[in-house]
Amino acid sequence: MADQIRVAIAGYGNLGRGVESAVAQNPDMQLVGVFSRRDPASVTLLDSNVPVYPMADIEQYQNEVDVMILCGGSKTDLPEQGPYLAQFFNTVDSFDTHAKVNEHHAALDEPARKSGKVALLSVGWDPGMFSLNRMFGETILPEGETYTFWGKGLSQGHSDAVRRVSGVKKGVQYTLPSEEAIARVRNGEQPELSTREKHVRECFVVLEDGADEEAVRNAIVTMPDYFEPFDTTVNFIDEATFAAEHSAMPHGGFVIRSGETGTQSKQTMEYSLALGSNPEFTASVLVAYARAVHKMASSGDVGAKTVFDVPPGLLSPKSPAQLRKDLL
Amino acid sequence: MADQIRVAIAGYGNLGRGVESAVAQNPDMQLVGVFSRRDPASVTLLDSNVPVYPMADIEQYQNEVDVMILCGGSKTDLPEQGPYLAQFFNTVDSFDTHAKVNEHHAALDEPARKSGKVALLSVGWDPGMFSLNRMFGETILPEGETYTFWGKGLSQGHSDAVRRVSGVKKGVQYTLPSEEAIARVRNGEQPELSTREKHVRECFVVLEDGADEEAVRNAIVTMPDYFEPFDTTVNFIDEATFAAEHSAMPHGGFVIRSGETGTQSKQTMEYSLALGSNPEFTASVLVAYARAVHKMASSGDVGAKTVFDVPPGLLSPKSPAQLRKDLL
Repeated sequence: MADQIRVAIAGYGNLGRGVESAVAQNPDMQLVGVFSRRDPASVTLLDSNVPVYPMADIEQYQNEVDVMILCGGSKTDLPEQGPYLAQFFNTVDSFDTHAKVNEHHAALDEPARKSGKVALLSVGWDPGMFSLNRMFGETILPEGETYTFWGKGLSQGHSDAVRRVSGVKKGVQYTLPSEEAIARVRNGEQPELSTREKHVRECFVVLEDGADEEAVRNAIVTMPDYFEPFDTTVNFIDEATFAAEHSAMPHGGFVIRSGETGTQSKQTMEYSLALGSNPEFTASVLVAYARAVHKMASSGDVGAKTVFDVPPGLLSPKSPAQLRKDLL
Repeated sequence: MADQIRVAIAGYGNLGRGVESAVAQNPDMQLVGVFSRRDPASVTLLDSNVPVYPMADIEQYQNEVDVMILCGGSKTDLPEQGPYLAQFFNTVDSFDTHAKVNEHHAALDEPARKSGKVALLSVGWDPGMFSLNRMFGETILPEGETYTFWGKGLSQGHSDAVRRVSGVKKGVQYTLPSEEAIARVRNGEQPELSTREKHVRECFVVLEDGADEEAVRNAIVTMPDYFEPFDTTVNFIDEATFAAEHSAMPHGGFVIRSGETGTQSKQTMEYSLALGSNPEFTASVLVAYARAVHKMASSGDVGAKTVFDVPPGLLSPKSPAQLRKDLL
């Protein structure tokens, strides 16, 4: 396609692979390259026609890329790569260290303004779509409470804790929203709920030969901090079931705003995601926002932005008139 | 408050009354007047300190109003009042005649550009919040299907039909989403479903003295077009229960996007509203968007706009830095 948006990926792990797949679902976009700190010859893409370049050469490609999607981690990659790449490219990242969002915003804003680029930060589902829905909730229903529930989702830290228990051969842990807590919120009770009260934990374990179910179960559910304070269930399964049913990275959750209007009418707004693959969904959000970044930059916008700053219609490949006709 | 946003209402029915309540929930806004075609002395507001003016004098107030919220009907009021008022005011309306949205947009755009004002159309929940969620769904998950379900909601036309049945003293009809259809969609089956297959109908009836339950039920459930094609249930209640439980105007519904990403991962995005009062919720959305209109107009934006054009953060009274800190 003649005027496809030229997208590139900086960092190729689960998220980068998700971005590669998502770009392929959008005919108005083209993946022009992947940049990696690894030896390019060792990086295998889904589509072998897309070139892999050394991260060190990335500056050389500034005229060939409309939007650079940063797929590194929030801890060390993004704080370093973001401000550096904003000197040369329009960027989108999924920075999710909540306490440092304004710091990251400031670090991106200066180089992006200097280079005349747009740097969109903290895109994905939380932060991202969930942030938008928290904002819509508290703004449309100013008298009320907002609740965020996470899950069903794979928890890496808690899965590691399960695997450290003696007798466990393989194990995963999912965090689930408490059905009871959700029911109370949907019912408009506006309860005060801690993160612990809002969630339960579910483990799937393959035992070592000869290990004792009850001993393992007890070691898990009594583990301080990790499991003891929660309603925790442990399921024992065989290795084939584990491989078939527990190798994906599901996640999701709920944002619920419960409020009142006028003469005490109860109003409930609810947003929920049930994700078969967390990194692939995050990647799909990044790619839709990359389209918006390209449009914003093309119309002269500059600086650091968040999802709060992006007119939603810019995410769509459709024209404004088509969007009104099809969806309003 | 010194720099409150000065809001006025054009047309005072259920929606206008909802706007009055909603403005009162937002301390950064002030209701400076209500305009009505009725004799102002006959219009009783919730807050008797707010002045009521004749609609015919509305032009005289152009320097005293930051945003005019139009609360008339889509059939005749808004197509006439919208383009007229865009000559003098920034406006927000809830125009919901889907087939004429682009026509209404064009009719507003010219006078708004001439006067240097912003005219935001089709705001509310459908069109409005549901439109946004349909857009996010199809854009983030381009391979998938979108489903809109309405209800539980009071249907005026079908309630009228129930009341025309001989033997019915009082009656209301609610449209409900089919639980079975929602379950199939949430399950990722992506079924093809007609509006009929997606909804069921529930009636509450107070009988005339001596009327026969079975005859009334039969007359309702076999009524062509209205009820015969649907799964319809009829509940008989007494007059006190009717007054206590069936005088509100509840509504709501679901927008569900079911799609796939990458290696056939199922992804589901769901947005739902459970509204104790339909007009009060619509009014709350109008008021939040009135804040955004004021900010857009203040920064030099002009012309007809829809929810697709409005950066979401502008709806909030919070600063961009505060929004990032609190919600991202």
